[in-house]
Amino acid sequence: MSNDIEEFRTYRQRMNDRIMEADHLGIKRFFNLDNAAYRDSALDGKTKELLGLVASAVLRCNDCIDYHLEQCAEAGWNNDELYDALNVALVVGGSIVIPHMRHAFDTIDQLRAEKEGRKE
Amino acid sequence: MSNDIEEFRTYRQRMNDRIMEADHLGIKRFFNLDNAAYRDSALDGKTKELLGLVASAVLRCNDCIDYHLEQCAEAGWNNDELYDALNVALVVGGSIVIPHMRHAFDTIDQLRAEKEGRKE
Amino acid sequence: MSNDIEEFRTYRQRMNDRIMEADHLGIKRFFNLDNAAYRDSALDGKTKELLGLVASAVLRCNDCIDYHLEQCAEAGWNNDELYDALNVALVVGGSIVIPHMRHAFDTIDQLRAEKEGRKE
Amino acid sequence: MSNDIEEFRTYRQRMNDRIMEADHLGIKRFFNLDNAAYRDSALDGKTKELLGLVASAVLRCNDCIDYHLEQCAEAGWNNDELYDALNVALVVGGSIVIPHMRHAFDTIDQLRAEKEGRKE
Amino acid sequence: MSNDIEEFRTYRQRMNDRIMEADHLGIKRFFNLDNAAYRDSALDGKTKELLGLVASAVLRCNDCIDYHLEQCAEAGWNNDELYDALNVALVVGGSIVIPHMRHAFDTIDQLRAEKEGRKE
Amino acid sequence: MSNDIEEFRTYRQRMNDRIMEADHLGIKRFFNLDNAAYRDSALDGKTKELLGLVASAVLRCNDCIDYHLEQCAEAGWNNDELYDALNVALVVGGSIVIPHMRHAFDTIDQLRAEKEGRKE
Repeated sequence: MSNDIEEFRTYRQRMNDRIMEADHLGIKRFFNLDNAAYRDSALDGKTKELLGLVASAVLRCNDCIDYHLEQCAEAGWNNDELYDALNVALVVGGSIVIPHMRHAFDTIDQLRAEKEGRKE
Repeated sequence: MSNDIEEFRTYRQRMNDRIMEADHLGIKRFFNLDNAAYRDSALDGKTKELLGLVASAVLRCNDCIDYHLEQCAEAGWNNDELYDALNVALVVGGSIVIPHMRHAFDTIDQLRAEKEGRKE
Repeated sequence: MSNDIEEFRTYRQRMNDRIMEADHLGIKRFFNLDNAAYRDSALDGKTKELLGLVASAVLRCNDCIDYHLEQCAEAGWNNDELYDALNVALVVGGSIVIPHMRHAFDTIDQLRAEKEGRKE
Repeated sequence: MSNDIEEFRTYRQRMNDRIMEADHLGIKRFFNLDNAAYRDSALDGKTKELLGLVASAVLRCNDCIDYHLEQCAEAGWNNDELYDALNVALVVGGSIVIPHMRHAFDTIDQLRAEKEGRKE
Repeated sequence: MSNDIEEFRTYRQRMNDRIMEADHLGIKRFFNLDNAAYRDSALDGKTKELLGLVASAVLRCNDCIDYHLEQCAEAGWNNDELYDALNVALVVGGSIVIPHMRHAFDTIDQLRAEKEGRKE
Repeated sequence: MSNDIEEFRTYRQRMNDRIMEADHLGIKRFFNLDNAAYRDSALDGKTKELLGLVASAVLRCNDCIDYHLEQCAEAGWNNDELYDALNVALVVGGSIVIPHMRHAFDTIDQLRAEKEGRKE
């Protein structure tokens, strides 16, 4: 039941590097397309990160939730706004989403604690 | 392959009425909770409808997509913003979402055509 | 938005016959295993049909819902019991299940009307 | 590959408390609705816990499986009945459910061992 | 319960054209990436179409199944090979895949009948 | 974030033995059917393992991915072919598959390292 955001970041970075090393054109283009989808365009990037969070929550992927929560916090969404987005995911996706809400709240608290730590 | 937004609205209303008639307390409370999730709170209702749209698209439910597209259009999102949200759903959910994008674009066009018709 | 239980039965029977005709050993064994799963054993068949209904509802498959509703009605579950089972599916699976509840209530009404017709 | 029911309980309780602390009206109402869905009504609570178990298994959520297995054991379902319900989930959901069956059997054994321990 | 492969092709083409017309860079790049994924590379295109078919079947998308069945038939897979691939999808995905097998067998028969018609 | 293929194998074997011990006829028959689906028939077993891998990846099950990667490596698929198959899964299933690609690449590297170790 461990949820360590720093451990996730390290593993994610290491394995993304490994995947890029394999140098598969299709996979590399997909990763680029994925990044591009969250840049400012008709919708601003901040709104799109929230869309990414809710999509990740209803599809029940903790790693994706963690990634988008980090981006959402960077983009300036506050806790009440994140809870409100997660509530939409809960209503759409049902009680099967609840374990992922527990994970998400845990991650939010870790992200805020890190930021507090950096401030001091 | 028919996609008639008016036919969907009629069936949806008739069967929602039928479900309410069954008078099951849990089901009625769920329907209320579902409506409440899209009201203004920490996030405004307009943003939450867009979250509902993306959640519906990645979970690949045409009826839910139609419902949220209608709410999104009412809330004032324009076509480019809706396409941008659907693009996030496409990247998160993959090519399996494409048939639902075809459906969504069809519905968007019908909704705009209706509105044009009402204006004249 | 048509939902005609008799049309479903005819298509289902015709295509199941077509699949059996292909005479693929693995597929035939799977169909047998599927039938066997709902027979009386530690749990009685009546309870297992209700499990099949809820599994079909949270996995959002209308054809599977129709099949299990028919079996559930035959097994003697009344409407209030079926609504109660569908409510569990709704809470577990979320609002994305609602279009399938509309379908299920429609099918239940058709099944009861057929039975009334047969009685007279 | 660890599966420690006691560790799950502790984390679940701590994070549920944390979520309640956030005091989001929609989330709190959803948690209430979720609890209410398994109380005696047209169907008895014992049957509904089994429905919750099968829904959790086909949706492939280990935390939800653990929660419902605990409730099912409390409600008086014996091992053969639980295996029979899990078999329905396996046939409906396919081999992709097998890793969750391994988890479920592990949890069942832990729950029975705990109960034996408490008896002595 | 209609399954008309020609109707599907027409709607698919019309709406894909409509989507391209919207000229969203991300969506256009995704469509290109999707096409590229099935071209000969380390694996030949014929094998990759079969992978696309099985992925579509376990994700339970009839439009995707129809598209990949057409590509698989063009690539030279015979019926027994297609049934064998669908059997893998059935075992992995469970009985919830059965309605999509009925659809797939129907489409296979239509594709073969078309080809017979063209020969004469 | 640990991914230890040997730990997975041990747990998998222990719990499969435990499940067989329960001696449930339906479950035992399902396990047999599952094994049979990957044997040579119209399609050879090597191709079918690749189908199993892609099905596991789009359904996002790490344990199933590990199992099929091991079978695929035994069957003689090389890394570039496995990456190509995973790319199909990525395009079909979307960015939600990325965490499972990280897992898959990690497992592939462990499997190749083991084989190197055995050679020396």
